[in-house]
Amino acid sequence: MNPVIKKMMEHRSIRKFKEDEVTKQQIETIIQAAQMAPSSSFMQSYSIIGITDPAIKKELGKITESEYVEKNGHFFIFCADLYRLTVLASAEDKKEMEEMLESTLFYQISVQDTSLAAQNALLAAESMGLGGVIIGGIVKELPKLDKILQLPPYVIPLFGLAIGVPDQQPEIKPRLPMTSVYFENAYKTDSLHQLIEEYDQRMNEYYQTRTENNRIGTWSSKNIEMFKMKTPVEFFSQYVKEKNMNKN
Amino acid sequence: MNPVIKKMMEHRSIRKFKEDEVTKQQIETIIQAAQMAPSSSFMQSYSIIGITDPAIKKELGKITESEYVEKNGHFFIFCADLYRLTVLASAEDKKEMEEMLESTLFYQISVQDTSLAAQNALLAAESMGLGGVIIGGIVKELPKLDKILQLPPYVIPLFGLAIGVPDQQPEIKPRLPMTSVYFENAYKTDSLHQLIEEYDQRMNEYYQTRTENNRIGTWSSKNIEMFKMKTPVEFFSQYVKEKNMNKN
Repeated sequence: MNPVIKKMMEHRSIRKFKEDEVTKQQIETIIQAAQMAPSSSFMQSYSIIGITDPAIKKELGKITESEYVEKNGHFFIFCADLYRLTVLASAEDKKEMEEMLESTLFYQISVQDTSLAAQNALLAAESMGLGGVIIGGIVKELPKLDKILQLPPYVIPLFGLAIGVPDQQPEIKPRLPMTSVYFENAYKTDSLHQLIEEYDQRMNEYYQTRTENNRIGTWSSKNIEMFKMKTPVEFFSQYVKEKNMNKN
Repeated sequence: MNPVIKKMMEHRSIRKFKEDEVTKQQIETIIQAAQMAPSSSFMQSYSIIGITDPAIKKELGKITESEYVEKNGHFFIFCADLYRLTVLASAEDKKEMEEMLESTLFYQISVQDTSLAAQNALLAAESMGLGGVIIGGIVKELPKLDKILQLPPYVIPLFGLAIGVPDQQPEIKPRLPMTSVYFENAYKTDSLHQLIEEYDQRMNEYYQTRTENNRIGTWSSKNIEMFKMKTPVEFFSQYVKEKNMNKN
């Protein structure tokens, strides 16, 4: 196993960090690594905001109800960004660009670009001996976050990435069986039920025996319960549309 | 520079491959690496379809008008997948899950999960001495592709990934200046105009002097022209909604 794949196979999310700071040099290397990810039509349609202001970090910790969002070596917010592409466009150009900028297609593409860059950022951090976790919970209060980060139109926050020196070493989570994720030539639903049942048993054992936060439950039951929660979701699509994205 | 970051910094998209096959063992390692990427709430909301049927590869080459989609060591299609999460749900559960499954929020989350996994897959391939390119053009004929791949509801193809032994070594593309991508505490629009102007000059030089496919143009002009094209986009959002995603 080469060192790149070895590092990938060692991934676990780290949610508890030592007080050590992440250096400016490390942050720059992480951003450089993120920028080397491919992007659709070389649009590079993302921006990254590093949060160094303790007041903002505290606010984010409150929004996400997660201590590690406040307490970490460094906290990034990854944003989908179609705004930068328009900066040198004339007013007339901008008018003509609107239909595509506001489309679901380009919303999706910018989410993809941002996520490709984020995975490089996380793995780069891990390769330096740091740990990290991606946190989606920042979207719970999007309009507030939008204001704090002073985001122009066509820029929306997708998720945070907390990194730092690990102060925990959780077990690696067993992944879905490969045959339920990877198919040849066509999606196969036939064997999925049995494969997931077996995986659920394995995950139930994992959840019960892991060192921290152990509990009873399966992968399916956990997800089914989450999707049954009547969490408001309309606010989310409304916010995205107000930022002129995902409209047509 | 450690070996992981070194590999990231060497990334360029490869669009021409030698005839060497990618081994079954290599494909399995790439999928394993992809599966180690983090996913939101550990949903693992993606599926990967490897195309080995020459007739399908030919068809995909036609759809994308790209020879390298047909001729490569292996071709993957990465799909956002919220279907697998419902396999063990009762009919009643499924009914209750619908609102969240059909939301823009979970559409976005599954696009993120898929892309995080894809970046690991690409980098894993590169770490083995292979090259690759992500190709979004497969979405040009989504309903046809959906049928070929036999995708259930809540599963949509996002992009392809062609890999193989490189038969070209293009120059590495200069990225946007870090100060136009990375901000502290808030997005800064003030300096963007100048930074992008400088980058456009740099990219114009790059486009004119690179070994293959050289031409005149800047990063901004290329993007502005693309967004001004009245390519149909409505079909795209309609397809996504027909798959019961991004509806509310």
